[in-house]
Amino acid sequence: MPPADHLDSRSGTTATAAGARRAGIVGAGSIGVAFALQFARTGWRVRLFDPDAARRAAAPAELNARLSDLARFALIDESAAQIAARVEVVATLEAAAADADLVQECAPERAELKRELFAQIDRAAPEHAILASASSFLAASKFVDETFPGHARCLVAHPGNPPYLVPVVEIVPAPFTAPAATTRAIALYTEAGLLPVHVKKEVAGFVFNRLQGALLREAYCLVRDGVASVDDIDTVMREGLAPRWSVIGPFETVDLNTRGGIASHALKMGPSYERMGAERGQHDPWTPELVAQVETALRTALPLDQWEARVAWRDRQLMRLAKHRKTTPPDKD
Amino acid sequence: MPPADHLDSRSGTTATAAGARRAGIVGAGSIGVAFALQFARTGWRVRLFDPDAARRAAAPAELNARLSDLARFALIDESAAQIAARVEVVATLEAAAADADLVQECAPERAELKRELFAQIDRAAPEHAILASASSFLAASKFVDETFPGHARCLVAHPGNPPYLVPVVEIVPAPFTAPAATTRAIALYTEAGLLPVHVKKEVAGFVFNRLQGALLREAYCLVRDGVASVDDIDTVMREGLAPRWSVIGPFETVDLNTRGGIASHALKMGPSYERMGAERGQHDPWTPELVAQVETALRTALPLDQWEARVAWRDRQLMRLAKHRKTTPPDKD
Repeated sequence: MPPADHLDSRSGTTATAAGARRAGIVGAGSIGVAFALQFARTGWRVRLFDPDAARRAAAPAELNARLSDLARFALIDESAAQIAARVEVVATLEAAAADADLVQECAPERAELKRELFAQIDRAAPEHAILASASSFLAASKFVDETFPGHARCLVAHPGNPPYLVPVVEIVPAPFTAPAATTRAIALYTEAGLLPVHVKKEVAGFVFNRLQGALLREAYCLVRDGVASVDDIDTVMREGLAPRWSVIGPFETVDLNTRGGIASHALKMGPSYERMGAERGQHDPWTPELVAQVETALRTALPLDQWEARVAWRDRQLMRLAKHRKTTPPDKD
Repeated sequence: MPPADHLDSRSGTTATAAGARRAGIVGAGSIGVAFALQFARTGWRVRLFDPDAARRAAAPAELNARLSDLARFALIDESAAQIAARVEVVATLEAAAADADLVQECAPERAELKRELFAQIDRAAPEHAILASASSFLAASKFVDETFPGHARCLVAHPGNPPYLVPVVEIVPAPFTAPAATTRAIALYTEAGLLPVHVKKEVAGFVFNRLQGALLREAYCLVRDGVASVDDIDTVMREGLAPRWSVIGPFETVDLNTRGGIASHALKMGPSYERMGAERGQHDPWTPELVAQVETALRTALPLDQWEARVAWRDRQLMRLAKHRKTTPPDKD
């Protein structure tokens, strides 16, 4: 049973009656070290393991180098030394997993390797621990199955790269993962200062890479068809679409673009977008039922009587961002 | 023949031997007023026309309100009054077009209306003027044809919304547009402080809306298939994909993500992305020839011996952006 705790959700720091949250990290490559940093900066105690002795030896310097970068850009609230002090490099997987609330596996993307590691982690971790893989493409059901005693507490938690700069973490349970484990994982990553999103099915690419893939495929088609240069396509995204999407996501963007919200947008623009999709072989129409489902979600978050105020807020955020972009050195520094 | 001029490309301001650049804007709706602001803030003289007297009367206040917003966020370098003084509201289309270097049509998205306006603009504008439509979806060949005496100088220049915050402008010539006119348009919009991209074919959605459409179609599919909620999809983009894409575009992103650049990325990840596309009916493979074409463009812009330095630059930019996002009020203010 997890100890009673007090959560300071703004900083993501947790203090428990028995001490801070505890993370065990298996794999001290780039993502493992980055996770160690993120957990430690939000007050967690971290034990970092790698089977390779040279990697274990290199990890503290790697951690410190990244902490220095963050300090240089005023992104950490404590000293680098205080944060680094929470990270202990350990020589066995068992030591990393032994009393963890969360074990984060960050090994290379190979099913058999992850299977073997998860078997060991499952034996070593305490009963209450959540066992998460940083896997980008392999769903948990590819390397864990119901023969694992702790299968119900296993899932994928796919981070941004690196997690201390890109806070999204995709929580992808397997069909055999207990709903309570998914809920617990979401709570734990929130405590670690991250933004967990629940990917409810083990689809290829989850959400992040599916969206990226859809965009890239269209971009490649535009180059292939001589519509625009690689550089101009990057410019349209970098200077046009992305700044806005970094303030409001794609659904909210079209909801705020059109008076009447997304239902109006789908009515007005749906046929054009459908034709563009048909040029790529796609036939996934925005049916009235689907649009109504999306509209319901958006109107729940933003009633229409707050629409104008939200549009004005969006514009203020875009102006703040424009000011940041104007004053940030655009090139090498 | 355009007057000899001296270009201060950083501010986009042009001083000519005979005076500043001159823009005529036809249509004083939201985009027309926004264009007026953008031209004026970069030193152009602007004549703004609308057939509706009430719109003409409302335009100065609209312009001033937007200038106040920009001033509040320190986005203009002169006083609002100095900028507004460059914009004259005129009562006829002929007055707007008469001595313009560039006529920017910003009327509603209806082919017959644009056809009629372009006929009038073509008669009224001086020979050297470029005639541009802010059309989002109608290609120039939908409302201009070779019976127009000035067809060779007509094209679409589709702005961001609004152009003074979103600097991308898509330059979309028709098959009958003279290459010299396209080149001139790109130079003029650059002088107006914008980032023109050359859309080389009149495809539906040009580039901006094609990319947005591809992303939206995938997003709608993920909601339909119960993979993720509307809010979580927006979060993945807003907090994950978009901040990075606002620093480096989608091609550069994958080029810097993978050691060996985009060729390695296509080899490693291409098959997975292709499978995801096939689930949507798409079969547009990243052939070796296509990848080589993209790779050539990227390696020309960034030789491999500068790859590491560029990755480090990317991380510094991401850290600056993370700091901005951390300190910007996230909600209503």
